[in-house]
Amino acid sequence: MKTQVGIIGAGPAGLILAQLLHLQGIDSVILERKSRNNIEGTVKAGILEQTTIDILREMGVGDRMDREGHFHNGNYFQFNGQRRHIDLKKYSGGKQVVVYPQHEVIIDLVNAHYENGKDIIFDVEDVTLHDIDTNQPKIRYRKNGLDEELVCDFIAGCDGYHGPSRLAIPDNIRKEHVHFYQYGWLGILSDSAPAADELIYASHDQGFALLSTRTPILQRHYLQVDPFDDIANWSDDRIWSELTARTKTNDGWQVPDGPINSKGIFQMRSFVCETMQFGRLFIAGDAAHTVPPTGAKGLNLAATDVKVMSRGITEFYQNGSTDLLDRYSEICLRRVWKAERFSYFMTRLLHTNPKFDSFERGVQLAELDYYTSSEAGLSTIAENYVGLPIQWEKAEDLKAVIK
Amino acid sequence: MKTQVGIIGAGPAGLILAQLLHLQGIDSVILERKSRNNIEGTVKAGILEQTTIDILREMGVGDRMDREGHFHNGNYFQFNGQRRHIDLKKYSGGKQVVVYPQHEVIIDLVNAHYENGKDIIFDVEDVTLHDIDTNQPKIRYRKNGLDEELVCDFIAGCDGYHGPSRLAIPDNIRKEHVHFYQYGWLGILSDSAPAADELIYASHDQGFALLSTRTPILQRHYLQVDPFDDIANWSDDRIWSELTARTKTNDGWQVPDGPINSKGIFQMRSFVCETMQFGRLFIAGDAAHTVPPTGAKGLNLAATDVKVMSRGITEFYQNGSTDLLDRYSEICLRRVWKAERFSYFMTRLLHTNPKFDSFERGVQLAELDYYTSSEAGLSTIAENYVGLPIQWEKAEDLKAVIK
Repeated sequence: MKTQVGIIGAGPAGLILAQLLHLQGIDSVILERKSRNNIEGTVKAGILEQTTIDILREMGVGDRMDREGHFHNGNYFQFNGQRRHIDLKKYSGGKQVVVYPQHEVIIDLVNAHYENGKDIIFDVEDVTLHDIDTNQPKIRYRKNGLDEELVCDFIAGCDGYHGPSRLAIPDNIRKEHVHFYQYGWLGILSDSAPAADELIYASHDQGFALLSTRTPILQRHYLQVDPFDDIANWSDDRIWSELTARTKTNDGWQVPDGPINSKGIFQMRSFVCETMQFGRLFIAGDAAHTVPPTGAKGLNLAATDVKVMSRGITEFYQNGSTDLLDRYSEICLRRVWKAERFSYFMTRLLHTNPKFDSFERGVQLAELDYYTSSEAGLSTIAENYVGLPIQWEKAEDLKAVIK
Repeated sequence: MKTQVGIIGAGPAGLILAQLLHLQGIDSVILERKSRNNIEGTVKAGILEQTTIDILREMGVGDRMDREGHFHNGNYFQFNGQRRHIDLKKYSGGKQVVVYPQHEVIIDLVNAHYENGKDIIFDVEDVTLHDIDTNQPKIRYRKNGLDEELVCDFIAGCDGYHGPSRLAIPDNIRKEHVHFYQYGWLGILSDSAPAADELIYASHDQGFALLSTRTPILQRHYLQVDPFDDIANWSDDRIWSELTARTKTNDGWQVPDGPINSKGIFQMRSFVCETMQFGRLFIAGDAAHTVPPTGAKGLNLAATDVKVMSRGITEFYQNGSTDLLDRYSEICLRRVWKAERFSYFMTRLLHTNPKFDSFERGVQLAELDYYTSSEAGLSTIAENYVGLPIQWEKAEDLKAVIK
């Protein structure tokens, strides 16, 4: 089998890429390890920044998001029992975010893909990449017990952190940066009333808490815990008691509680792979980088990676130029590192660090005070939260002044 | 002897306070441990932020600063061999800083004090504070071998980190926050040409460097070193070699060198004392807080502390109100913590942390890229560097929104 772009992985990165390429008349084939039911049915959180909202709308895949998503113009930061509003829309020049879960995005993208008359090859096994430093790279895999080969002009590695694509970049030119945090998140789904009209990020001496909403009757809340703690240590009563203590305000407000449907603990981690390209292979999304959820950036980075990739591939087919493709990694990584920075900043700002001395806790509270009261500080939070623009120019051209 | 305000310490805090009080017709007496020659002759760096410039001008003590100071509209941040300009004036709404050494400020303030017909009691020993929780606190000291007592309405503790004032606040209501950094600064004075028209803050894998100017022929440069390193390990050649390596740019620029006159190593430290008041005692400046020099805040915090103090004392004498004096510590500490935050932020942003993993170094470079290319980021650097405004209202009134 032959195609122009072989896409490994039917997550947000792979599916958005296929749609962007289709709109430019470029053919692609998507290979996916899991089943359609699996990728559409795995419930995941999702905050889409303005940049992603724009990409989905421009692709014609934003209708249900526009109807059913919860658009937020801001969020709340809370500390010392005070709740302060971050007016994202005001401080980002009119931009927004939408709470629209990742699996809903997947459902919309798969539907669009089938409406384009295209297929996705699900349930593939043993995916391997070959000849990626030639003009005719190949993807080999097994499907229904048979060995198959997909011959491509380009391979897009959109197969997540555990996929084979990244590892196909030779060790000597691939540098991986990993950072583990001392923080875990205990997440719950509960049948209770929404805490507020927007997300509440709460810093508290006992640890960070995040109050968020799924639907008017289903809430998603998180507690900072030891990442190696056992969920069995957390009774529903203990969870509500901690959530209440960490999020109550000086004027007596308390989080509405209710039955807990599910709960689990996961560790916070950051990861960046430099480079994101080798020969005719380009990696995107979680295959290339992961972020802790504090900055709400995961899916959004995948969307902007493949926007850059699709434009580069389009230029190649339209005029034979590889200028943009050659700079794919540079353009993506500059923005990826800034999103990693923001996620790290938010994580550090909001979590209680047991290694901090009392001076550093004081600095942390001053940081919360500063960023929620200065117009400039509010603007930095807002522009990062709604998504920084993609900078297509070379980094060294930007505001570099030598005197 | 009796006075309205007994001031311990003839540093910037004590001298500015005496002048501010004099302009309101309030009498004070300054006691100083050292000699006049000593305080005027100890050469110290000094960057005065706009807030301090304004205070000195309003007091009528800004003429020589305006004539001889080096006014800067910006500075440079450098990383990855790129030099980027921070336009402080543009991004702070027209504010500036002036390079005008601290001992010059002291000389001007002492002159003004004598021109007011006032005296300073120099060379005092064994200063102790008494009855500070009464309406008639007393300072006892020895001068020329004789025991003396100064009876006051208020005591201003402007006697630095090692002075007795802070320790007169009872242990059970005094909380001290100290933070030691893994960083030392090796400072040199050299007979060489200026590196640039403004300060250069350089981040480099080998460590931070700062290039600053004293006069057209005398430069003050700094290198990040191990705080416990011995200056004997640093030959002049080694110093210039490191300064050159850390500050050269991609287009071949190199720092001008020359003979080194003096060199020394000091450790970076942050300190905040909560509270800054007890009874009729109010502490200010280094007696209450110290900062690492990275944020250029030390002298400036002293100036704003005593501005708040003088206004509180003035209100007391004008209408008997203690409203402002009662909130002295709250008003000062809110701004002090933000300046501590900024100093900590600048220190963390610019120094090479041997404990950082490669991800955290990547985040640090992204932070430098972000803060030097985003308008919002540039504005946060600028507004902090030129000095945040004093917020006289209560912290909990500010932008607190509970929904």
